[in-house]
Amino acid sequence: MKKLLAEFIGTMWLVLGGCGAAVLASGVENVGIGLVGVSLAFGLTVLTGAYALGHISGGHFNPAVSLGLWAGGRFDKKDLIPYIGAQVLGGAVGAGILYLIVSSSPSFAGVGSNPGAFATNFYDADVYGVNYGMVGALVTEIVMTFMFLIVILGATHKNAAPGFGGMAIGLALTLIHLISIPVTNTSVNPARSTAVAIFAEANAMGQLWLFWVAPIVGAVLAGVVYKFMAPNK
Amino acid sequence: MKKLLAEFIGTMWLVLGGCGAAVLASGVENVGIGLVGVSLAFGLTVLTGAYALGHISGGHFNPAVSLGLWAGGRFDKKDLIPYIGAQVLGGAVGAGILYLIVSSSPSFAGVGSNPGAFATNFYDADVYGVNYGMVGALVTEIVMTFMFLIVILGATHKNAAPGFGGMAIGLALTLIHLISIPVTNTSVNPARSTAVAIFAEANAMGQLWLFWVAPIVGAVLAGVVYKFMAPNK
Amino acid sequence: MKKLLAEFIGTMWLVLGGCGAAVLASGVENVGIGLVGVSLAFGLTVLTGAYALGHISGGHFNPAVSLGLWAGGRFDKKDLIPYIGAQVLGGAVGAGILYLIVSSSPSFAGVGSNPGAFATNFYDADVYGVNYGMVGALVTEIVMTFMFLIVILGATHKNAAPGFGGMAIGLALTLIHLISIPVTNTSVNPARSTAVAIFAEANAMGQLWLFWVAPIVGAVLAGVVYKFMAPNK
Amino acid sequence: MKKLLAEFIGTMWLVLGGCGAAVLASGVENVGIGLVGVSLAFGLTVLTGAYALGHISGGHFNPAVSLGLWAGGRFDKKDLIPYIGAQVLGGAVGAGILYLIVSSSPSFAGVGSNPGAFATNFYDADVYGVNYGMVGALVTEIVMTFMFLIVILGATHKNAAPGFGGMAIGLALTLIHLISIPVTNTSVNPARSTAVAIFAEANAMGQLWLFWVAPIVGAVLAGVVYKFMAPNK
Repeated sequence: MKKLLAEFIGTMWLVLGGCGAAVLASGVENVGIGLVGVSLAFGLTVLTGAYALGHISGGHFNPAVSLGLWAGGRFDKKDLIPYIGAQVLGGAVGAGILYLIVSSSPSFAGVGSNPGAFATNFYDADVYGVNYGMVGALVTEIVMTFMFLIVILGATHKNAAPGFGGMAIGLALTLIHLISIPVTNTSVNPARSTAVAIFAEANAMGQLWLFWVAPIVGAVLAGVVYKFMAPNK
Repeated sequence: MKKLLAEFIGTMWLVLGGCGAAVLASGVENVGIGLVGVSLAFGLTVLTGAYALGHISGGHFNPAVSLGLWAGGRFDKKDLIPYIGAQVLGGAVGAGILYLIVSSSPSFAGVGSNPGAFATNFYDADVYGVNYGMVGALVTEIVMTFMFLIVILGATHKNAAPGFGGMAIGLALTLIHLISIPVTNTSVNPARSTAVAIFAEANAMGQLWLFWVAPIVGAVLAGVVYKFMAPNK
Repeated sequence: MKKLLAEFIGTMWLVLGGCGAAVLASGVENVGIGLVGVSLAFGLTVLTGAYALGHISGGHFNPAVSLGLWAGGRFDKKDLIPYIGAQVLGGAVGAGILYLIVSSSPSFAGVGSNPGAFATNFYDADVYGVNYGMVGALVTEIVMTFMFLIVILGATHKNAAPGFGGMAIGLALTLIHLISIPVTNTSVNPARSTAVAIFAEANAMGQLWLFWVAPIVGAVLAGVVYKFMAPNK
Repeated sequence: MKKLLAEFIGTMWLVLGGCGAAVLASGVENVGIGLVGVSLAFGLTVLTGAYALGHISGGHFNPAVSLGLWAGGRFDKKDLIPYIGAQVLGGAVGAGILYLIVSSSPSFAGVGSNPGAFATNFYDADVYGVNYGMVGALVTEIVMTFMFLIVILGATHKNAAPGFGGMAIGLALTLIHLISIPVTNTSVNPARSTAVAIFAEANAMGQLWLFWVAPIVGAVLAGVVYKFMAPNK
């Protein structure tokens, strides 16, 4: 129960912090934080959550992470459904708080019907000046989640430098956003994609399937590859 | 006494460093540090202060942090008033040094009468292009301080990775600024809000109540929640 | 074999992450990550790779690093050829994945025939507003790789703070990019230069020699200097 | 002798890296690293140098640091002159390498006769849009160096978290630059100021006295204050 509360709070923080930075601060004129700031924000939600809550729940905050750890032999199958439930619920509450904040402004224009509004994920949409197709989005999300799980599995391995896992994993998420926001707004996390899709007026729900399928494929693949590569377990 | 000097210096550094970066460097043309730089600066005042002074005083530098740690059972009630006094005084001296620096320039325009000038906190004011109301400001400051304290309580828990607390806590403050500067200029710290309100010509004093009430509510709430969630204290 | 797979994946990540951030995200209008974001991305590929894979292969991801460690007496000569092979191959696959992603967009203009397109390295080419000649490029790449190896050899020395090597080395690569992208697009890594030259239409192949010679000269020099400077071995 | 070589290389790296990022990369159109990137670069030279060379020489790279550590009872008086000599010499070589690189470009305009060119320090000069006077510069450099030494003395104290000193100290220098580049181009380091003044055509030499006096005053003051504040040495 305490574990599920930790996963709930951590995923709430990931969505509120990462998507909040994107919605509230990235596009401010002249001094806005841009995609560098959004990338930092997503990574720091995980870095801070990992050090604060990791010793309670493991600090997954992401259904693909739970599944990848299961595939890598590091997470018990019977905890999968409760963890994923807590994550999806926590993410939705994070998005709800963000919606409450932006609703306090009469002039806010961030929850529109255009793709990428309210930080939703997308493909085949010209949000950042270049239109990447569905294949590019699939490849990107699969490979990015694959590498995210390689970092998670490797940096928390018993042979890795103790204590540094939270830093490496958080900064891996920053890196993934630095690379791939222009392609899909970066998901690698089905709970994050679902959370904001609920509140967005756009057709984010129609494209949501990709942001469940691709991250899970990449994560499970990484679990299998890492199990082969790592020194005994 | 040594503890109070450490809290005094640390809070002076937080205000001088964070608000100083905002006032002196954020708006420089073409190469200004923007809100990303201001967010980094606030976080790094706490990160550096925590490693330098944390082993002397605990490194609170913030009345809401002292109160949240007390609510979480980690800080003695009898030290609350002296700590908060040292923090408010240190913050005021930090703002005074900043005022001295900007006064050396005849052309400086940063201490004006508009909201947000001299890095004051605000609500219901269109400083960054969107006007968030009082409710949005309350929700933002309560939730951000709540999460700040969750990170503080969690990352300094005896089960957490030793040594990494200062990094996680400092970067949590960076993250909080990346999200919420456009809403309130980000307080989560009554001493920081009070310090710059003293020197600003604007009506920052009239809105100061919110930046005492909301951070304290969020911090105390986090203390209670974390005490429930953490493995035996 | 496991070591070579780790070097393959790590170098793939370095090229996909660093060059990917440059190609996909640096030039986005208004919110693009710019050279700060690209510098962060390159450094974080190494930081994350070092914590995830360093305990398997040592985490070189770069032929110059393997050669510099050999010159410094830290790496066995017989492993040089297999490591360098895995690195070049991994880098090429990383560049191939990036090519696949950009190919999903009909409008993408990043793989042109101009110098620096597709993140290729260059000299004597006016990509960032100033044209640095071949001598400037040679000096830059030699000195930057020299200092990269000094950091690697020093931060992994048995007297250095344990565990922090991956952080210091990754951030050293960020620093090197912050300094030198405008001069050569920053290589210090022959595998990275080769990988993107394969896919670029420009004359990157004709200038590729410099990005093998200079990094290797700088790296070997650092190995020799550090061996003299370090306390016994 | 090995210690002096380490101080020489570290200070060379500080000047080449920090001033190099400023001269080569800060003002690039559209994607330039700006003052955030320059601040990061200065900090990372010290962070990387501290982990790589700190276990050899202590990693001062700055005459004010050596003097502050002496005032705080942590550094032997007889080593002061050799350390400062190695630092000034190393800084000058770093600036010389940078000069060599920019000289390879016929069109480079960065070593002009205007204040702040070639990353020189200044006061009473309108480089970033606001002209701060000599008093503002003195206050800024004294206070910033004071806090730099408080962080150095505190984060390397035996009660501080072991290993994190290099990170806290490096990021303190980043923070100091985020605050104060617009005021003086940020020195807090006489060797760094001297190094670039040698190569600049401007009247940087005439203002150089302030960037020896103020950092040393601030550093020595911090040594005295910290000795009082710290738990038994």
